[in-house]
Amino acid sequence: MKRNDTEKEKGILIVLSGFSGAGKGTLVKELLNTYRDEYALSVSMTTRAPREGEQDGVHYFFTDRAHFEDTVAKGGLIEHAEYCGNYYGTPKAYVEEQMAAGRNVLLEIEIQGALQIKKLFPESLLLFVTPPTAAELERRLKNRGTETEEVIAKRLSRASEESEGMEAYDYIVINDDLQACVKELHGIVQAARREPVRTKAFIEEIQKELKGFVKGE
Amino acid sequence: MKRNDTEKEKGILIVLSGFSGAGKGTLVKELLNTYRDEYALSVSMTTRAPREGEQDGVHYFFTDRAHFEDTVAKGGLIEHAEYCGNYYGTPKAYVEEQMAAGRNVLLEIEIQGALQIKKLFPESLLLFVTPPTAAELERRLKNRGTETEEVIAKRLSRASEESEGMEAYDYIVINDDLQACVKELHGIVQAARREPVRTKAFIEEIQKELKGFVKGE
Repeated sequence: MKRNDTEKEKGILIVLSGFSGAGKGTLVKELLNTYRDEYALSVSMTTRAPREGEQDGVHYFFTDRAHFEDTVAKGGLIEHAEYCGNYYGTPKAYVEEQMAAGRNVLLEIEIQGALQIKKLFPESLLLFVTPPTAAELERRLKNRGTETEEVIAKRLSRASEESEGMEAYDYIVINDDLQACVKELHGIVQAARREPVRTKAFIEEIQKELKGFVKGE
Repeated sequence: MKRNDTEKEKGILIVLSGFSGAGKGTLVKELLNTYRDEYALSVSMTTRAPREGEQDGVHYFFTDRAHFEDTVAKGGLIEHAEYCGNYYGTPKAYVEEQMAAGRNVLLEIEIQGALQIKKLFPESLLLFVTPPTAAELERRLKNRGTETEEVIAKRLSRASEESEGMEAYDYIVINDDLQACVKELHGIVQAARREPVRTKAFIEEIQKELKGFVKGE
């Protein structure tokens, strides 16, 4: 894609969704550890109060409604939504900086946000993370040991709903073995860069060059 | 994708197109050498006469018009076309056997055939092979040393036409360094297996399983 070694390939925007219990969090952490310079994690802005242990600028950028609304008005968020009376959004500046520096930016959001992103940025990459089977999902939810039967049933019911949207994603990432999955995810990202939607500049350039040869005949 | 270790993942149908001089032939040869058990090359059936050095069953299956038309009538070809008074087609049986055995089958055909295949088999994978620049394409064509200026100009003109169809392919394979390109191509094939169009059985299965959990609540 890059035409020479001094030109840096721009990073891409990667949206990760998937069932609760699919292991998205661990996967992202391991991906960032393994390919440190190639990925960056987007930190969301929110108006909800920090929970215990959550740090500003690490887990979220915590802010108030006035500042959030002001940021929206100034076009400072890629996407935003309101859940349970709190705003959540993705700050644009950080995403753009990281992508310009050649890093792929990871966003962990659910399907509505994912589809919103895809509509705005057709070259973004939507990945859906899933365990190999529903039984394995149930096992992982149960093994956490922190959730009641009722909560587990709710998660599985929500997973069933979410599974109806899987086809809208660009790739399905099956998280069976963590290390294998990290490698597979990275491979998917590299391959995805060769899809025409993310190779537009290259295609246009070579089309132009070839036309030049024909005219020059 | 496979649900357990005894189940073999079916191979996929890979259509390779690209500019004359892009290095498709060498790439296919090296891919078959490097990942011997994972790929098979489809051999076309044709009614044209064998050229010097061409072997039946290796370069083509050579046959007459009556047998070719009979094969078409019996549904024995995946696609076929007529060029310069000769028939060319892709025998179905070999492709199906190899795919069932878990091998990805490579077909080297031009864009019309490629789009015909995609229409019939949406899960097939269309790859377009290109050198990194048009100048490099010209250099490779000239370096062959066997072609006249006129032939080279014709090839470049044809390449310019073909480049207009690049967006219709699933991936653009940039053949700069041969070994790197073989690895990249293999990576693309593995990633492509995780696109929803090639993960249908997995998605349907997990959707069904999750519905089962919800009903069982």
